[in-house]
Amino acid sequence: VSDAPRVGVLGVGLIGGSLAMAARQRLGAYVTGFDPSAVAVDRAAELGAIDAAAGAPAGAIDGAQAVFVAAPVGALPAVVRDALRLAGEDCVISDVGSVKRAIVEAIEDPRFVGGHPLAGAETSGVEHARADLFDGARWYLTPTSLTSGILYERLHRLLTGIGAQPCAIEAGQHDRMLAAVSHLPHVLANVLVERAAAAGGEEGGQLPATGPSFRDATRVAGAPSSIWADIYLGNADALAVELDATIAHLETVRSSLRAADRGEIVEWNERSAAARRRLQDAGTGARNLVELRAAVPNRPGVVAELALELGRAGVNISDMALYPAPDMSEGVVALWIGGTDAAARAEALIAELGYPVARP
Amino acid sequence: VSDAPRVGVLGVGLIGGSLAMAARQRLGAYVTGFDPSAVAVDRAAELGAIDAAAGAPAGAIDGAQAVFVAAPVGALPAVVRDALRLAGEDCVISDVGSVKRAIVEAIEDPRFVGGHPLAGAETSGVEHARADLFDGARWYLTPTSLTSGILYERLHRLLTGIGAQPCAIEAGQHDRMLAAVSHLPHVLANVLVERAAAAGGEEGGQLPATGPSFRDATRVAGAPSSIWADIYLGNADALAVELDATIAHLETVRSSLRAADRGEIVEWNERSAAARRRLQDAGTGARNLVELRAAVPNRPGVVAELALELGRAGVNISDMALYPAPDMSEGVVALWIGGTDAAARAEALIAELGYPVARP
Repeated sequence: VSDAPRVGVLGVGLIGGSLAMAARQRLGAYVTGFDPSAVAVDRAAELGAIDAAAGAPAGAIDGAQAVFVAAPVGALPAVVRDALRLAGEDCVISDVGSVKRAIVEAIEDPRFVGGHPLAGAETSGVEHARADLFDGARWYLTPTSLTSGILYERLHRLLTGIGAQPCAIEAGQHDRMLAAVSHLPHVLANVLVERAAAAGGEEGGQLPATGPSFRDATRVAGAPSSIWADIYLGNADALAVELDATIAHLETVRSSLRAADRGEIVEWNERSAAARRRLQDAGTGARNLVELRAAVPNRPGVVAELALELGRAGVNISDMALYPAPDMSEGVVALWIGGTDAAARAEALIAELGYPVARP
Repeated sequence: VSDAPRVGVLGVGLIGGSLAMAARQRLGAYVTGFDPSAVAVDRAAELGAIDAAAGAPAGAIDGAQAVFVAAPVGALPAVVRDALRLAGEDCVISDVGSVKRAIVEAIEDPRFVGGHPLAGAETSGVEHARADLFDGARWYLTPTSLTSGILYERLHRLLTGIGAQPCAIEAGQHDRMLAAVSHLPHVLANVLVERAAAAGGEEGGQLPATGPSFRDATRVAGAPSSIWADIYLGNADALAVELDATIAHLETVRSSLRAADRGEIVEWNERSAAARRRLQDAGTGARNLVELRAAVPNRPGVVAELALELGRAGVNISDMALYPAPDMSEGVVALWIGGTDAAARAEALIAELGYPVARP
């Protein structure tokens, strides 16, 4: 028996397989995988994504310090509940679903932390799994006031270890944000391919030639219904709100066009150019790490509270470590923050929460 | 004085510069360029995009067999009129604007053929010009009943010579189609960046992280207003119709979401997947060329009529040649069509137009 961390992965497709591969290669973890498809799990073992194939979920969970559930959104509550039942007290369980509110509301357990990596590809299946799939990728985590700080820290560290950038966010906020940056783009890509195909039909059967920018804009059109119907329906409220806003926006553009109002069209387009620049700038943070140390009481939810507060303010926690006091009554959370401005903001926020904070 | 074809290019940015470079390298053409910016035209000469820099449009037009106007859509009518005034009887003049109805209606001259290559990039300026920019790119041409067959054939041949795939289309049809496959995608990319930026603002200042699929979907967001205001306004009618259809489509999706109707959501998504496949299939035609020869009267508009009829039916003319009879009263048009099915369709269409057609 070695000291290698033991990781269980339920569902070894593109995401589960890549996660397993990265944990093996980068953390030296011993990874056991399970998949409802025996073919998939055998293939994962053949490809070296996992160390061992389990014939049932219990085989992947038994003895693991961390278990990831990479199942379709609709199947998550049942699979996560099963996993929690089978797992020990000292095991963190997370998922990789694209909507978070439903699963987080369904599961009340200090060992569960919802998760969602912003990664993936047009491809699917373990054949396309890659150890570097999550390099630099935002990985949202949705801890709650119930969440164990020790298990949250373990999960955070495991994710940074495989190259991802974990970031805490409240589940509802996650879903509203993803409605805008992922689910709405999927809907609009669907609209675009249907309009283009219709343009062909209306013009006597000649399908229009499309250039590279059309292909870029519609890469996600018609994504697999087996995955996306769950996502659309699982985030129906927030997505409907985005559709309201989109329809209102398009009505405004249409009225500027019908009025041939150049001033309005230019102003609208410049607003979009500015929004695009802001989004691009947000993707490029400073890289010099500043360490902060906060003294916190040892009770559930405190680490989650810190992580969520910083996430809310746009402060990225590059790395995190927990140092419990000998009597376990309190502890020190060390946080590494990228950029001096962000670190100063983090320091102020932690102090406002009432926890002593210092730079070592 | 050599036999090299002489080409004039008015406007040596990305498109004009690439066209000039391709004509020099692939056709051995002698290319004279003009640009309202003296800096740009000097740079084009330095970079070897053009053989000679002209200080005024006349210098680029004088003696040319073909002149391309690569000016912003709003400036086209004036620049094309000037060019026609300066050009000889045996010179074809074309443009590269993204909307065609306005310019084609404004110019009634057998020497003018509207054009629009589906190429370009996020970049602009002659620094990014490349001889291979048009390789395999659809290049729409909008001849009318006035168009000279000899000049149309010359233009078609020149464009295939630089690697493009010219295709005749009626100007109004072009604009309706481009509203769907280019102008609507630009509008929706603008909506997406504004919704994503707003999602950040509404959530307390944290701009959302965005993944690769969001970046793909919004690559064209906030495209330069100096070019795109003209395009949006120049195609306002057709684009407004697309916005009507898009709004109606989004309202339907929203109502399926609010009703949590999985069947409707799946059906809608599958329709989009099918539309995407149809569009992708349309991009991959057979490559074995079949030659057809049609006997046609030598009068304006006949070649345009043939080209438009075939374009309408989705038949791509890979190459074209005109062989006038000695007395110039009639001639033979040779057409090379990719794929036996397409060639059979072309043969039937030409016969229906009343022209004798045969395979040599």
